[in-house]
Amino acid sequence: MDLAIYSFDLIGVAVFAISGALAAAEKRLDILGFILFGTITGVGGGTARDVLLDTDHIFWIANTSYLWVCIGASSLTWFMAGKVHSLHRVFLWADALGLALFSVLGTIKALEWQAPLIVAVVMGMMTASFGSLIRDVLLGRPPVLLEPNIYVTAALLGAGSYSVLQALPVTESVAMPVAMAGAFLLRALAILYDLRLPKYGNAEVD
Amino acid sequence: MDLAIYSFDLIGVAVFAISGALAAAEKRLDILGFILFGTITGVGGGTARDVLLDTDHIFWIANTSYLWVCIGASSLTWFMAGKVHSLHRVFLWADALGLALFSVLGTIKALEWQAPLIVAVVMGMMTASFGSLIRDVLLGRPPVLLEPNIYVTAALLGAGSYSVLQALPVTESVAMPVAMAGAFLLRALAILYDLRLPKYGNAEVD
Amino acid sequence: MDLAIYSFDLIGVAVFAISGALAAAEKRLDILGFILFGTITGVGGGTARDVLLDTDHIFWIANTSYLWVCIGASSLTWFMAGKVHSLHRVFLWADALGLALFSVLGTIKALEWQAPLIVAVVMGMMTASFGSLIRDVLLGRPPVLLEPNIYVTAALLGAGSYSVLQALPVTESVAMPVAMAGAFLLRALAILYDLRLPKYGNAEVD
Repeated sequence: MDLAIYSFDLIGVAVFAISGALAAAEKRLDILGFILFGTITGVGGGTARDVLLDTDHIFWIANTSYLWVCIGASSLTWFMAGKVHSLHRVFLWADALGLALFSVLGTIKALEWQAPLIVAVVMGMMTASFGSLIRDVLLGRPPVLLEPNIYVTAALLGAGSYSVLQALPVTESVAMPVAMAGAFLLRALAILYDLRLPKYGNAEVD
Repeated sequence: MDLAIYSFDLIGVAVFAISGALAAAEKRLDILGFILFGTITGVGGGTARDVLLDTDHIFWIANTSYLWVCIGASSLTWFMAGKVHSLHRVFLWADALGLALFSVLGTIKALEWQAPLIVAVVMGMMTASFGSLIRDVLLGRPPVLLEPNIYVTAALLGAGSYSVLQALPVTESVAMPVAMAGAFLLRALAILYDLRLPKYGNAEVD
Repeated sequence: MDLAIYSFDLIGVAVFAISGALAAAEKRLDILGFILFGTITGVGGGTARDVLLDTDHIFWIANTSYLWVCIGASSLTWFMAGKVHSLHRVFLWADALGLALFSVLGTIKALEWQAPLIVAVVMGMMTASFGSLIRDVLLGRPPVLLEPNIYVTAALLGAGSYSVLQALPVTESVAMPVAMAGAFLLRALAILYDLRLPKYGNAEVD
């Protein structure tokens, strides 16, 4: 695998694991709870992607580094969390970074497995949001798909813009970081300025 | 694939997508939320079935029409929902139609993949209810498996009656619509007359 | 398959099915609800394991006895539940036995499929807890991963101790029951004496 993709993949897993461990901190779980939610959040999205693409092996079965990164990042969070001023702020930004990286990395992996373009975009969005989704459902938090701020839209931007860029005469070393930066920027603006799409609201539901 | 099966499959995906988009309307999500929940509900059941049967490709990866139908039906729901008198009524009937179609179509696909009869019935019930189940869990609604009205029983009738009919000297062009009509009728009666099976209730849980 | 493993597997499925049916009793569902939750809880963990390991066939598709055991155990629970003094006590102990058996059986199956050791431990923990997890999420109960008493730790002990023992010059006929007994004992002590690991709690979440 390309080294840049592998590095981003490990970083994405690590920041999502931190977000999962911080969600466990919010619920005051024990250290095994930190590791469990860190691992579920870190590898959840890529696992769903690999199961649906029917790849030869789920990525963390083929290469156990991903599990060790989850265990390491979650344990570190357990020991460091007390020293951080605003856990929720770290949570939000770790989650945003994971979202941006995985929306593009999920699309890349789906294209490698010959998925049609629309499927690759769906896989990018799923890789970016599925880990957080399980984390939130299991912890009884409102799931990210219901987030009023732009969240899945940012994943769509990352997956969609990469899909367009890779079809143009642009090298991967440009397309990948540009799409990731776009997704991260949109999510960052949504967090900072509370951006949202218009809601459905001109009909009563009886 | 047989044309009748393919047509029913697309209709089933479309009506489930409408039910998912209407559930998103109830929660006043944005248009991307409509499309997400429409797509998850539309293809969720068949995805679980294909993963468990380990088919060559998940159906919506092999044929992207299903995704486009979900996106189209959900977007249409976004624009039309305001013009409908009772969204909840449309939701109930779209869901009932999807339930009836998929309980039989899921069974047919499992039999095609050489599943034993009891497995085929389970797959039919799962195809019919899994999409609605994820929709309800993610939206924080009581999941369909807890529905006091007959719901899964209707799926069991569709899957079971098709399994029996296909073993008899009856052509598929009779067995399929008869089983679908039976499942739909039972669910329709349950909605209209509030039918339910007797509950468990003669023991206290301490 | 080895007869001892097969027997323990059937017992594990049966006791988890009973725990699922008893959870359905708590919610006063009908008999189909008992069977559904019994089956989901009974085969859920092994299904997740087999999907991730990408085994040739999901175990209950390859051998339908597992489904019949679920249906039988759940139906029996429906008829017997009224005669039992404390349903919750039976629920807790059935669940504990299933946890102990599956934490080891899941690890054994993963090792059979050449999974690395850390993956095998993860698979053992997942096989032991995933069925209960779906049961609880669908029924709106606090999921087992949030259980303040030692729960996943017991699964980790079963999976981990078997992994160590099988690498030592110990026969399987010793390693398997010893690891199961260890996991069951730890969970039993946790139930009886309310054992817990220290919680996270020295930082405020804003």
